[in-house]
Amino acid sequence: MKSIVLLGTGNVATHLFTAINKTLSFKIVQVYNHNYKSLENFKDVPVTTKFEEISQADIYLIAVKDDQITRVSQNLKSNDSLVLHTAGGKSMEILNTHPRTGVFYPLQTFSKKKEMEFDNIPICLEAGNEDDYHILENLAGELKGKVYRIDSAQRRSLHVAAVFVSNFVNYLYTEGEQICRENKIPFEILLPLIKETAHKASLMSPYDAQTGPALRNDIEVIEGHLAQLTAQQKEIYTLLTHSIQNLHGKEL
Amino acid sequence: MKSIVLLGTGNVATHLFTAINKTLSFKIVQVYNHNYKSLENFKDVPVTTKFEEISQADIYLIAVKDDQITRVSQNLKSNDSLVLHTAGGKSMEILNTHPRTGVFYPLQTFSKKKEMEFDNIPICLEAGNEDDYHILENLAGELKGKVYRIDSAQRRSLHVAAVFVSNFVNYLYTEGEQICRENKIPFEILLPLIKETAHKASLMSPYDAQTGPALRNDIEVIEGHLAQLTAQQKEIYTLLTHSIQNLHGKEL
Repeated sequence: MKSIVLLGTGNVATHLFTAINKTLSFKIVQVYNHNYKSLENFKDVPVTTKFEEISQADIYLIAVKDDQITRVSQNLKSNDSLVLHTAGGKSMEILNTHPRTGVFYPLQTFSKKKEMEFDNIPICLEAGNEDDYHILENLAGELKGKVYRIDSAQRRSLHVAAVFVSNFVNYLYTEGEQICRENKIPFEILLPLIKETAHKASLMSPYDAQTGPALRNDIEVIEGHLAQLTAQQKEIYTLLTHSIQNLHGKEL
Repeated sequence: MKSIVLLGTGNVATHLFTAINKTLSFKIVQVYNHNYKSLENFKDVPVTTKFEEISQADIYLIAVKDDQITRVSQNLKSNDSLVLHTAGGKSMEILNTHPRTGVFYPLQTFSKKKEMEFDNIPICLEAGNEDDYHILENLAGELKGKVYRIDSAQRRSLHVAAVFVSNFVNYLYTEGEQICRENKIPFEILLPLIKETAHKASLMSPYDAQTGPALRNDIEVIEGHLAQLTAQQKEIYTLLTHSIQNLHGKEL
């Protein structure tokens, strides 16, 4: 049984807390956060707001906001224990004041309300040495996640790729929702299309799945679309249409 | 039993052919296309390449490419029968040489290879009169589609909204795939995130589901991302980041 002190109380921390406590070989022995309020949600476990009260443990799992990781790490006394962070956008190096470091990055969108299973969620692992890598592998395995060995440089790229396929995609959904609302069309009409478009990405390369007026260079339809849009939507429509044509034109 | 002549042999036509022939109250009695080759896939049904050989039927269902609809419609003799097209981006008016017209627009991405059920697919209907609307409702109902009454102006908006949430979204998946490929990361790592992002749109408004560095205005992360991107990706990243901030900033 390995003991873990969890540092942080946000979405990722909350989901990790629930999931880790269901494992056989890992146990969270304490939760730290700088303010007490958010610690109230953590029941049946010792909590603290003070660095000097942090318990000795096998693993320190830092799941705070990206810009707080360095501060928390520097205030933490790890002795000879393993120190991890969970951030896609941060290198392992920022933990370098500690002798044993690693990254445990679950690649998923977490929201507090929605319960989240780690089953089959990709978990990107990195560690400073092979023994510590195996500890991370065991933890990810007990959460039933899908393990990928990803170094800091790859993780940085993966993080930006995730912004394209998730944050930006969600923004395009918002645009679709707005267009529907302005024209008294229920947004739910678009949901099967959204779902199918996402599903297709698992069946074939998105490059091959591309369809639509941009790909066909259907100028009449494109002009008809542009005429309906706001200035901001027009700018996005034009840039993405040209991008599709550049990408596919090159290789046609 | 209502007889249908299907005009066209593309993706939508092919899927409609299979689905309609499974209904109890509608039967495809002939398939027309201007070239013979593509008609070879239609078995057990009379086919023709000549307008003057088109049979008498209750319904003429025009499922050709958008820019061919007018030409096909103008060459068709409908007498007193109902003439339909299936195009999201075209008004019902383009069929106006016929006395009875309508639109039967299934909102989904069709690819020939992948078998497609109409179950729960939104089908957007419009007709020139109530009796014909009921015929369309019956047809959509027998295909087990989900019926929406959408007029030509709404359909034009819906079509552009679909471009945002499907064609453009797929393009962002392509960018994600490219970033992965260049960094030797398997694209499959992103699939659960893609799926979850799409799924969230059915649980809450995409406006409320927005996350990421743009929303948080996390300048350090944004700058780190931009430094990794090609010129084209940078342009898209910047525009979408600003768009997210404009949209959410207004109402914060």
